Amino acid sequence: MSTPFRLGIAGLGTVGAGVVKIVQAHGAALAAKAGRPVEITAVSARNRGLDRGIDLSPFGWEDDATRLARRDDVDCVVEAIGGAGGPARALAEQALAAGKHLVTANKALIAHHGHELAEAAEAAGVALRFEAAVAGGIPVLKGIGEGLAANAISRIFGVLNGTCNYILSEMEATGADYADVLAEAQRLGYAEADPSFDVGGIDAAHKLAILAAMAFGTRIDFDGVVTEGIERITLADIRTARDMGYSIKLLALARMHDSGLEQRVRPCMVPEKTPIGALAGVTNAVVAEGDFVGQCIFTGPGAGAGPTASAILADVLDAARGHLSPAFGRPAACLTAAPRLQHGEEHSPYYLRFMLADRPGALASIASALGEAGVSIHRMRQYGQGDPVPVVIETHDARRDAIDAALIAIAALPVSMAPPVAIRIEEV
Amino acid sequence: MSTPFRLGIAGLGTVGAGVVKIVQAHGAALAAKAGRPVEITAVSARNRGLDRGIDLSPFGWEDDATRLARRDDVDCVVEAIGGAGGPARALAEQALAAGKHLVTANKALIAHHGHELAEAAEAAGVALRFEAAVAGGIPVLKGIGEGLAANAISRIFGVLNGTCNYILSEMEATGADYADVLAEAQRLGYAEADPSFDVGGIDAAHKLAILAAMAFGTRIDFDGVVTEGIERITLADIRTARDMGYSIKLLALARMHDSGLEQRVRPCMVPEKTPIGALAGVTNAVVAEGDFVGQCIFTGPGAGAGPTASAILADVLDAARGHLSPAFGRPAACLTAAPRLQHGEEHSPYYLRFMLADRPGALASIASALGEAGVSIHRMRQYGQGDPVPVVIETHDARRDAIDAALIAIAALPVSMAPPVAIRIEEV
Repeated sequence: MSTPFRLGIAGLGTVGAGVVKIVQAHGAALAAKAGRPVEITAVSARNRGLDRGIDLSPFGWEDDATRLARRDDVDCVVEAIGGAGGPARALAEQALAAGKHLVTANKALIAHHGHELAEAAEAAGVALRFEAAVAGGIPVLKGIGEGLAANAISRIFGVLNGTCNYILSEMEATGADYADVLAEAQRLGYAEADPSFDVGGIDAAHKLAILAAMAFGTRIDFDGVVTEGIERITLADIRTARDMGYSIKLLALARMHDSGLEQRVRPCMVPEKTPIGALAGVTNAVVAEGDFVGQCIFTGPGAGAGPTASAILADVLDAARGHLSPAFGRPAACLTAAPRLQHGEEHSPYYLRFMLADRPGALASIASALGEAGVSIHRMRQYGQGDPVPVVIETHDARRDAIDAALIAIAALPVSMAPPVAIRIEEV
Repeated sequence: MSTPFRLGIAGLGTVGAGVVKIVQAHGAALAAKAGRPVEITAVSARNRGLDRGIDLSPFGWEDDATRLARRDDVDCVVEAIGGAGGPARALAEQALAAGKHLVTANKALIAHHGHELAEAAEAAGVALRFEAAVAGGIPVLKGIGEGLAANAISRIFGVLNGTCNYILSEMEATGADYADVLAEAQRLGYAEADPSFDVGGIDAAHKLAILAAMAFGTRIDFDGVVTEGIERITLADIRTARDMGYSIKLLALARMHDSGLEQRVRPCMVPEKTPIGALAGVTNAVVAEGDFVGQCIFTGPGAGAGPTASAILADVLDAARGHLSPAFGRPAACLTAAPRLQHGEEHSPYYLRFMLADRPGALASIASALGEAGVSIHRMRQYGQGDPVPVVIETHDARRDAIDAALIAIAALPVSMAPPVAIRIEEV
């Protein structure tokens, strides 16, 4: 009961400072829950003098974060530096090699190097945990890896990037353009100055790769995530989607097929009256489907200092209790290298938008091209008058390669006045 | 790795049989996750010969469930008998006393005897776990007790009884009466032949008492739950609620106040466009609010053989891994006996419905009685013509004792033609 569990915290940005604040605010409760005191003994950051609203004087200081791995008074390193390589990776490797538990919020690090780090943690008999890397404060890795562990998961999906969801739901709510909403999101701090990791889907892809490995017991495969961002989503598509009963969401989805593992981050149309379709703002949600449990949904704040620090400390408490589950829910040697589903094998209904010259036979030529590619039409709408005129088609279930072939054929038609748009429709 | 974790299963109804089915379906995956094989060695039920769709021949049999506690080949007893006392309680006590882990789905047992059982489990150094007792397959006790463990929880609430939510959402969707929907729910197997534990709120109160103890670190206090069922909810109130932007839900809510712990199960009006307000059918949802994480929502199937067995096996896997957290998240000796919030101290806006004689001054006499009790009016609606005529009032935030005083005064007025109805309005 009395041996303290001693933390070394690397990185004192908002997340690292948040960890310090929780330990200072809830020390007694954390000790009761862990069965032993949880203490911070050392910290490291780039700038020692910066005012972070916390008193660092009780803690040892290291200019070089990797030195935390060598301190005798540190049992667990909390990595809050960020970045897939560089100092974060060096620290992680050295901490595990030195027999320290490692808790990190670093999705890029885990997405790229999670398997090797999991092996290192097992070899050292220590915990490697990264709840904060996926969906911020929501305890979703614990929920799936432990809470739903009795199930074979068939599909896992969700909204994993708050920036994108804020932009899409603001466009829908206010009718403002992508560029205007992005600028507002940057002003509010919901988007970075360089937003490409978020709006390009990379951030969500990092998280999805981690979730999929945990859900399916597969070896993490970030390079296998097919990724498409929200940059090309227009207000016109958002309005048409709503008109058809859908919302457009940047959906991260992984599904196990007989022929391979499907992992993709893509703007999708989802029924608006579902928990995912109705999700507004920066909130995240993850849906897991298990063979015995059915569908469980985890919803909450996907980013921010408080939620991220909350998730980090949940991992710290588990390590302090001596709960050393394997990083991905089963030993690294048991994680299977699943083949990737071929891109063209993906199938679903699709929303297609064409800009057609207003002349006789235009619609017929589109319908004909779809038919030749084997894509059948569920419903079709023409929006207003004009030349070109927007025509929207919702297909029946179709393979992606058939859709791609149809779009190539249609783009080459004389009546096609702008590149066609295809957005997957997902049952959620 | 190789020492098996051996289960004795007491009760082979749908839940106990579901546990057998999962172990038989996913044995290899469970072993990988637990780090050791998970095996069933013995079972007990009332009727050995019943066809349950599972082969019991590999397992030892006990006519008397309590004998599972004495078997050398059982490490963990799974109690799926049910009932707060009797054989379930005897088995639980004897299993813990004999140094067996105990996993149960029995909310009544834990609500009534959870504290003593937690003490017994700690004394024996074994696990007492009951994830399946609250919200079926949703890993919400793990989510709150471990995933959000770094937070001080201020409020926890949710829809914890699928039968009630099915009845209320069907009444709203179809316009059918309470009695008709209840009969349909019984036909579909969503409600028991004697539905009083569900519709009377007792089942939800059991679950709320468990959730509150986990969330607040308080000693479980089932008798402190103020409980009111849905039997008196009318279609008229459901329609008026919808008209005002609310849904009526049987809300289970616990909140820590300076003056005491509030625990109540009550029909409440909640904004319809919220995850709780939009929750339809037998699905459960639990919302936890933490000081660092903010609001997290756990949604999923609240009952049924598969979900319940899924939750039981999650607990079994934790025990098999040797993860022996205290039953309520901290040692029993650390759980505080919180004073109960006095009923009259509850406060919120209220929906009030009166049936008034259609005569001059009727409304004024109601408004005056409310004013004298210190209840101020936010908005008022009169529905149609007729004698008596329904009048609906939404109050500003008011103490429950003020509402009660006003209702007593109004019921005594000559213009009041039927007992007034008061339904709490909850921000969720």
